[in-house]
Amino acid sequence: MPTYRIDLEYDGSGFHGYARQPDVRTVQGDLEEALFRLTGPVETAVAGRTDAGVHARGQVVSFVTKDLLDEARVLRSLNSQLNPEIAAMSLRRVAPAFNARFSALSRTYRYLVWNRRFADPFLRHTAWHVPDPLAIGPMNEVTAHVVGEHDFASFCRKAEGRGTVRTVQTCRWFPEAEGLFRFEITASSFCHQMVRSIVALSVAAGRRKVATSDIPVIFAAGDRNAARGAAPAHGLTLWEVAYPAAPVPSPWSSTATS
Amino acid sequence: MPTYRIDLEYDGSGFHGYARQPDVRTVQGDLEEALFRLTGPVETAVAGRTDAGVHARGQVVSFVTKDLLDEARVLRSLNSQLNPEIAAMSLRRVAPAFNARFSALSRTYRYLVWNRRFADPFLRHTAWHVPDPLAIGPMNEVTAHVVGEHDFASFCRKAEGRGTVRTVQTCRWFPEAEGLFRFEITASSFCHQMVRSIVALSVAAGRRKVATSDIPVIFAAGDRNAARGAAPAHGLTLWEVAYPAAPVPSPWSSTATS
Repeated sequence: MPTYRIDLEYDGSGFHGYARQPDVRTVQGDLEEALFRLTGPVETAVAGRTDAGVHARGQVVSFVTKDLLDEARVLRSLNSQLNPEIAAMSLRRVAPAFNARFSALSRTYRYLVWNRRFADPFLRHTAWHVPDPLAIGPMNEVTAHVVGEHDFASFCRKAEGRGTVRTVQTCRWFPEAEGLFRFEITASSFCHQMVRSIVALSVAAGRRKVATSDIPVIFAAGDRNAARGAAPAHGLTLWEVAYPAAPVPSPWSSTATS
Repeated sequence: MPTYRIDLEYDGSGFHGYARQPDVRTVQGDLEEALFRLTGPVETAVAGRTDAGVHARGQVVSFVTKDLLDEARVLRSLNSQLNPEIAAMSLRRVAPAFNARFSALSRTYRYLVWNRRFADPFLRHTAWHVPDPLAIGPMNEVTAHVVGEHDFASFCRKAEGRGTVRTVQTCRWFPEAEGLFRFEITASSFCHQMVRSIVALSVAAGRRKVATSDIPVIFAAGDRNAARGAAPAHGLTLWEVAYPAAPVPSPWSSTATS
């Protein structure tokens, strides 16, 4: 049966997260409502179930249909029906084994911190405003502890069955622009609120509210109360999802972006 | 009497423009409501009266008070009272002759065009989405006609007394990023909707809907119907206002930004 992949961007500000829930507006709810008019009911899989207020630049969704789709037409219709907070960048046929969630090799998230005394009106939905001056050195001492395979119990909200051991490939803070810090983290998967909890501890260290000598202690505690809570959702963006390269260039794959 | 200058940023999306009007939300209305609690009623002057939906990065406001202000305290209180769409970046005492409107030497505006097939959710309030491919060459043939002293009657909404001759110092389109064009124009002053009308003609030329040979004809027509209307307000930002350098470093001037 034909399998399709959609690459999606959204401003998460107005949504109660990605995953469909009754009686509230969600990205999945909006997407499926528009999609089903064009495909009939299909089951969608998603690479990253973002929380309320979290954004996406490179979200990936997949689904299987009974019949072939006119990709360009469906993509155009989908975008014309979606509210402007969501955009489908591409729709293309992929190998039948492809599943947006289970085929993903890694997810990359970014987090922005606006570090000036006064808020920036243009960043109020996409960056956490931290007025106290931050030192990037201690922030990257936190991230140095994050890279590699560790038990992230101190940074995870409820371990639901799966445990809290994860392998993080890269994790680092960058000076993005005057007054703006960018955090970037890549791992095969994350436990719930792990990214925002690492951001919160980084910022506490950058404000010198946590001594760098305490960082290994907090990691070792295995207790969420030892950490520094979670940073606000609106600074977080699901940036990119990586998949294995297709074995051969697929003859029916066509990107419909301009 | 002490004279003060405020440098202001705002996301104009939620406002009916800068200038105070009865019964609608305006930037001036919000600002003065917060300011007057701290200064008592004062008369404010503004560098650029932006239209509904237009943003500002470098708006300047001035006012005269009876008594000296505690600048740092007033700035802090002002920002804590303003909604997050507006931020006062600095408040400082300036020479008594300073008037945000009449002392200004020039104003610089920027305009953003998102030129991809599908809208970008994160630019929907700050860039005009033009899906048809644009050629920057013809767009800069338009701007080449703009620079210098000209009668801009073809680009001005109603000439109210002042006439439509203006001197433009710089005007140009730049490829800002993948899919993004930035327009920048500097002049001592503009007539109403002049910037957005020049943008609209540029985009029409970039889409090859206006032949470059017609550009001088449109300029010469002196008739607004000859041009191509006005580009949407939400792509426009008042970027910077230039003033004469202070004659000597003022002893009581202090910037309160971090």
